[in-house]
Amino acid sequence: MSAKNAFYAQSGGVTAVINASACGVIETARAHPDQIGTVYAGANGILGALHETLIDTAEESAQTIAALRHTPAGAFGSARYKLKGLEENRAEYARLIEVFRAHDIGYFFYNGGGDSQDTAHKVSQLGESMGYPMTCIGIPKTVDNDLPITDTCPGFGSVAKYIAIATREAGLDVASMAQTSTKVFILETMGRHAGWIAAASALAKDTESDPPHVVLLPEVPLDQTAFLARVKDSVERFGYCVVVVSEGVRTAAGQFLSDQGTVDAFGHVQLGGVAPTVANMIKTALGYKYHYAIADYLQRAGRHIASATDVEQAYALGKAAVELALAGRNAIMPTIVRDSDSPYRWHVGETPLESVANVEAKMPADFIDESGFFVTEACLRYLRPLIAGEDYPPYRDGLPDYARIRGHRVARRLPAFGD
Amino acid sequence: MSAKNAFYAQSGGVTAVINASACGVIETARAHPDQIGTVYAGANGILGALHETLIDTAEESAQTIAALRHTPAGAFGSARYKLKGLEENRAEYARLIEVFRAHDIGYFFYNGGGDSQDTAHKVSQLGESMGYPMTCIGIPKTVDNDLPITDTCPGFGSVAKYIAIATREAGLDVASMAQTSTKVFILETMGRHAGWIAAASALAKDTESDPPHVVLLPEVPLDQTAFLARVKDSVERFGYCVVVVSEGVRTAAGQFLSDQGTVDAFGHVQLGGVAPTVANMIKTALGYKYHYAIADYLQRAGRHIASATDVEQAYALGKAAVELALAGRNAIMPTIVRDSDSPYRWHVGETPLESVANVEAKMPADFIDESGFFVTEACLRYLRPLIAGEDYPPYRDGLPDYARIRGHRVARRLPAFGD
Repeated sequence: MSAKNAFYAQSGGVTAVINASACGVIETARAHPDQIGTVYAGANGILGALHETLIDTAEESAQTIAALRHTPAGAFGSARYKLKGLEENRAEYARLIEVFRAHDIGYFFYNGGGDSQDTAHKVSQLGESMGYPMTCIGIPKTVDNDLPITDTCPGFGSVAKYIAIATREAGLDVASMAQTSTKVFILETMGRHAGWIAAASALAKDTESDPPHVVLLPEVPLDQTAFLARVKDSVERFGYCVVVVSEGVRTAAGQFLSDQGTVDAFGHVQLGGVAPTVANMIKTALGYKYHYAIADYLQRAGRHIASATDVEQAYALGKAAVELALAGRNAIMPTIVRDSDSPYRWHVGETPLESVANVEAKMPADFIDESGFFVTEACLRYLRPLIAGEDYPPYRDGLPDYARIRGHRVARRLPAFGD
Repeated sequence: MSAKNAFYAQSGGVTAVINASACGVIETARAHPDQIGTVYAGANGILGALHETLIDTAEESAQTIAALRHTPAGAFGSARYKLKGLEENRAEYARLIEVFRAHDIGYFFYNGGGDSQDTAHKVSQLGESMGYPMTCIGIPKTVDNDLPITDTCPGFGSVAKYIAIATREAGLDVASMAQTSTKVFILETMGRHAGWIAAASALAKDTESDPPHVVLLPEVPLDQTAFLARVKDSVERFGYCVVVVSEGVRTAAGQFLSDQGTVDAFGHVQLGGVAPTVANMIKTALGYKYHYAIADYLQRAGRHIASATDVEQAYALGKAAVELALAGRNAIMPTIVRDSDSPYRWHVGETPLESVANVEAKMPADFIDESGFFVTEACLRYLRPLIAGEDYPPYRDGLPDYARIRGHRVARRLPAFGD
């Protein structure tokens, strides 16, 4: 019996280190040619399986695969595409199995967030019932850090580091100009439902007068009066105020502070522009001159300043996914298990896919201080090791030299799918 | 005769490397104790001289001064404060001379843009006429790169590198998601009158399909029809489009694009931000899903990824300012003179302050291509060496370890100034 091939796909919003997980999967698979044939990557994630557009990673050099470790975003393409439930949409799941069978694929590695772990779980169930049992392993990924059970999610540590550095640097800028210019600076971060990313800005604060002075989290409905009082206090005491605001902050009535009214494929409302809303609030009530930054994709693609810890964990989880599959484990996701905060120690654990599918981990209540405008020492203790270490990419002509894949397509063996 | 003291002040918008110039000034002055006594830094720039709030840099350790080389923003405080003309406002200039005389200051080093060079020039004229001749040397600084004569301005190379990296990284993010998500990404950069910063994004492009696909410069009035056609073409050919837009872009009628109060889906006025204006334009005409980032202060404070060339030049100009002063030169500004593009060679030259005061250097016409939506190879040849090399700051606990000055104030010798 020849070794089965593997399918690897990237899912959802990409990160600075999801390719490091891809690197871990492919390098580890290559080290076991007796057990795994070729790793096929889905072009544009799961769409690559549905449409049988498979990228033959065997055509990529060892150098290119190694360079994925320092390359941000999704080298094979990712997709915001959520498969519906098995009952509503059996055809799509059946198609996946059909494509996997046609290409002798026995391993399914799905690199994404909660939705993706759910999909991986369903594929494992359906393969069984269709007489084509597969080994399905999820690999966690999300800048939002909102997966349960795993201590953290690859992608988060790097965006946390990016935001903490941005807060420190822009804070120094504002501090040095505040007497005659900008008094309030607002940095808008990602984080729809969980405030982890905005919370990470607090790592930049060493002394009371340091930025950030206010952190607005989605977990805490905005009390506008208390917020404005805090901004005023900061300007009066320190000469300036740095506010870090999560895009998902809501009013007491539960409305997003800024809601563009468009919805993505997962049914999530597309957010943006909470910074100008907050700026306007401050300008109107207090009259301070303000500036704001919206980091948007810069924060999650910022591989140039990735956390070394994050890169290491992203790689380790990709590697573990393959090793667990080869050890006969199925329908699980490798996790990060924290052994100690300081010195930071961790190891790779595992959890059943169904335990993480569609569960959203918000910040624990004891990570947010009584005012609701800052995080606690417990939160900082949790966050600190996640941004530790720098893992600089190589540079060429002053710019990071990121991997470019050849992207060789595997010949189709099936008719086209769908309409 | 004892050695005269020196006054050093930072002026206008701060940069990632203005403290490297301060480091160059102070370290070089310390190396010549026989010729220069103490370097006093103005607290909040020139306001420090007007209000006699002087920081005694002799109270800072050699380690702290050395650390200024890797610390962004203005360690002594900067100011947006332009002295008026000599005729309108002789009192302020007379006060400066009075403070300098009271503290036995014989050297005036003013680190800023065109306005500051003008001020330094006037101080040199007035000192002469008031019987207190001073040595006045300007040190160039501006992220806008809009000073004449000098080949480039310290601060620009680092912001150029930041924007080029951001374009490459966010571009990879968008490329990997475009099939099912964002198709157009807009990055707003600084640059009110000159397009240098937005132009630097073009360094990220290696092949035709690479981002950026469109660069909007203040030098080119926006032709909306041609712009939208270009965006559509990029999305159709490459699957996505990255637009880099300078904050100073204007309509054909000469209006700032950011001045056109746009309204979001809920009727709220969108404040500032040329990026949302461009995004709405694209959404309305073409219907593409978009995201935008506004880098704001993050770009000019981004010392974590400063250009090594820029840091070296910032330091060299601070050092040269002191050396030129000691050599008896006066009312001049040291400049960067380019000897060759590739390999990049440069040396420090000098120019009279009056030649740079209040002159704005825009991008030359032959740096912008015929379409008006991109730069030429001549422009890239000019820009390329300016972002070369990385000069990473030291890190502690995952964050850049930036200098904190003690900021010891010199005892006042004069009554308070003004009201």
